Amino acid sequence: MPDTKSEDMTESTSRISEVMAAISGRIAGRALAPGDRLPSIRRFAAAMGVSPSTVVEAYDRLAAEGLIRAQRGSGFYVSQIALPPLKLTEAETPKARAVDPFWVSRQSLDADAAMLKPGCGWLPADWMPDAALRRAMRSLAKSDGDLLSYYGSTRGSSFLRRLLLGRLTEEGISAAPEHLMLTSTGTQALDLIGRFLLRPGDTVLVDDPCYFNFQALLKAHQVTVVGVPYTPSGPDIAAFKTVLAAERPRLYVTNSAIHNPTGATLSPQVAHRLLNAAAGNETIIVEDDIFADFEPEPSTRLAALDGLDRVIRIGSFSKTLSASARCGYIAARPDWVEGLVDLQIATNFGGPSPISSEIIAHMLAGGGYRKHMEELRRKLVRARREVAERLFRLGITPWLQPRGGFNLWCRLPEGLDSGEVAQAALAEGLVLAPGNVFSVSQSATGFMRFNVAHMLEPRVYQVLADALKRTA
Amino acid sequence: MPDTKSEDMTESTSRISEVMAAISGRIAGRALAPGDRLPSIRRFAAAMGVSPSTVVEAYDRLAAEGLIRAQRGSGFYVSQIALPPLKLTEAETPKARAVDPFWVSRQSLDADAAMLKPGCGWLPADWMPDAALRRAMRSLAKSDGDLLSYYGSTRGSSFLRRLLLGRLTEEGISAAPEHLMLTSTGTQALDLIGRFLLRPGDTVLVDDPCYFNFQALLKAHQVTVVGVPYTPSGPDIAAFKTVLAAERPRLYVTNSAIHNPTGATLSPQVAHRLLNAAAGNETIIVEDDIFADFEPEPSTRLAALDGLDRVIRIGSFSKTLSASARCGYIAARPDWVEGLVDLQIATNFGGPSPISSEIIAHMLAGGGYRKHMEELRRKLVRARREVAERLFRLGITPWLQPRGGFNLWCRLPEGLDSGEVAQAALAEGLVLAPGNVFSVSQSATGFMRFNVAHMLEPRVYQVLADALKRTA
Repeated sequence: MPDTKSEDMTESTSRISEVMAAISGRIAGRALAPGDRLPSIRRFAAAMGVSPSTVVEAYDRLAAEGLIRAQRGSGFYVSQIALPPLKLTEAETPKARAVDPFWVSRQSLDADAAMLKPGCGWLPADWMPDAALRRAMRSLAKSDGDLLSYYGSTRGSSFLRRLLLGRLTEEGISAAPEHLMLTSTGTQALDLIGRFLLRPGDTVLVDDPCYFNFQALLKAHQVTVVGVPYTPSGPDIAAFKTVLAAERPRLYVTNSAIHNPTGATLSPQVAHRLLNAAAGNETIIVEDDIFADFEPEPSTRLAALDGLDRVIRIGSFSKTLSASARCGYIAARPDWVEGLVDLQIATNFGGPSPISSEIIAHMLAGGGYRKHMEELRRKLVRARREVAERLFRLGITPWLQPRGGFNLWCRLPEGLDSGEVAQAALAEGLVLAPGNVFSVSQSATGFMRFNVAHMLEPRVYQVLADALKRTA
Repeated sequence: MPDTKSEDMTESTSRISEVMAAISGRIAGRALAPGDRLPSIRRFAAAMGVSPSTVVEAYDRLAAEGLIRAQRGSGFYVSQIALPPLKLTEAETPKARAVDPFWVSRQSLDADAAMLKPGCGWLPADWMPDAALRRAMRSLAKSDGDLLSYYGSTRGSSFLRRLLLGRLTEEGISAAPEHLMLTSTGTQALDLIGRFLLRPGDTVLVDDPCYFNFQALLKAHQVTVVGVPYTPSGPDIAAFKTVLAAERPRLYVTNSAIHNPTGATLSPQVAHRLLNAAAGNETIIVEDDIFADFEPEPSTRLAALDGLDRVIRIGSFSKTLSASARCGYIAARPDWVEGLVDLQIATNFGGPSPISSEIIAHMLAGGGYRKHMEELRRKLVRARREVAERLFRLGITPWLQPRGGFNLWCRLPEGLDSGEVAQAALAEGLVLAPGNVFSVSQSATGFMRFNVAHMLEPRVYQVLADALKRTA
């Protein structure tokens, strides 16, 4: 902000504006959603370093503009404006709000080297195929000049697309080039699909629990998010049919292969019934199989049963190859891919960095990938077993034993609130992923997701034990 | 689509569905906007390989669903649905629709090596700092392991951000780390800002003419786009004030430094008046300075005069360093950056590929960058002069002589339609950029943007001369 020499009155006017801008900025950025309660006047005045009367004036002006509304005896709330009400939890405590999807993302992504991160959703650097990545970069540094300077074609690296088509064929999905496009990241793949198919006010169905960033993303699309309880063999089919009939969701977004966070695997029976129920309701399914290569052997996939008619497949290699050379993909009906490519040109002028997609392609084609994943899966079998034993001594038990992957979805000892445990642990430099950030219905207070690859240091269990004691 | 053995009736039902899906796909993908006329029944039947009666049935069903409406004697049109009417041109001919922003992007990005591309918006690979790029990649291939595997922090590479803050300081903008974040690309920077600040139905002001992809992007945001005529010293100030008062745009999006496509430079006087007019209207300004390093000396910048209060600065290095290691940035008020970072986490789980941003940082810090740009500017002075002479012989004259950059915005001989010229040239393997793809008001029928770096082969002028003759 520029320095200004000004009268007291002008200064307080600009301070009122600052407070108004801070609130409207949070509303615009979805940190405050329609129906949310604003910070109390006293608290916000302290946070912004202004007088309470400045905040009162600012809140009054925002109310006059219709952005917020005053509720007598209760405080100020964000207006519904033109947006439909989000389904918020019934028992929404301030604690639950504090520990939300963004809190976990920010802690994990911005954690310094000293912090331990059993709550993060990726493998440590020394578990990743480091040598292959460097080899790919050196190889690319010697390659044809055009590749290193150009935006790349609208669908992305033909080398990588050929490899991906081969993988789809192995799954039994007969896909042609017009079914496939590359995207910046796996998350952006889902985001593009959301912009292509959703309108504000639509309903989207997710698993409960599900990957927390699905919820953050869908919130940005201003849709209503509803959940279907997840069982060890996939979504609860009776509940699935009920929610389909009641809510008529436009999309159902799910993880196949190894479910995040539970580690469960879709059974063939559930997959088949799910597809039929969705078809009857005209619900489009987005199947994210980002953990597919962690499976010991392939499980039933929705896109394979459906054949890219009603199912859209998305994925990326950030969990197995590199999160630093980011690249995702979408496999779908050709007419949708056409529209998605246009949308990607308009909003990003292309897909992934061509350098990133070529690095990924080199690593996939390199021959060492299968061997690396075999070794990684063996390592993870041992790690899951070891970590489960150590957690058991703290009274923490897995909901199920996953077939693969690095996550254990666990129950804490009776009566503990995983959000409180996570906050206590953060104070001691441990980033945890409490259950409710994964649960649309906020029904996972007693659960936590542990990344076993980040739990091999004794200090993790010391801090965790402390946090459990302090919040008991 | 899976193979099905089915009765004739079921087959024609599925063909009707295919036609319906193709149309709704185009509507969803914004290739057909509310109010647009659908392809004629006969033409679409031929394109899809079905009978006209199938298309009739499909259109009737879409009309019954309310997605399109029939206008007696005129054809079918896309319904307004819940969207406000876009300001479309009065004299919208089918030709103007065919040659639209997506047409140019697709042709340029997907052109094979045999095609000449004077219409594209980037330099040929051999004009780019190739050696420095390879050096950066080799250096990174030797670097610390974490960098090559992780998602990176939420604001992006601290190395690159430090360099960018230094550049902002040189411009006279006192920016601190909280004012800055990295994004996937320069286009995605604008897209994020749009999602953060715009609602469907808002109005956004752009220059006329302006970078064509601004229009495609804003269309995806479902806002009303209006234009202000651009003069050799910036937007026409009287017209700017008028349109601000009449339309009350939420945003004004513009190129500073070297304007795309005209090559004009903002004068200090226009910059100052523009900022005051915008402030009075509470219009937020997005200043894209992607061509800044092409200037012989720095010109007046809106973010420098304003100090990141009401102006948001965006940019990238895809024009000067590499379009293959993609990375953009946003400099703005800290509370907006906070919200934008959250939105980027939700929709992309981070910003640029960390590998890309480190490559860009290495190249910027490398010491060779300034020298490379000095040489590039000299090369372009010669190329602009040479190309202007050759175009003059064809009766094509530049609207102004730019101070820098690779674009010449030129008038074709009287009476010619640049869209027709572009289509004639495409048939002979030459990709051109006709004026109306840059103009919201479609008032640039007689103009064309030429990229001088792609115009040094004699064949370009032969094909161009032919195209001029054939469309005269």
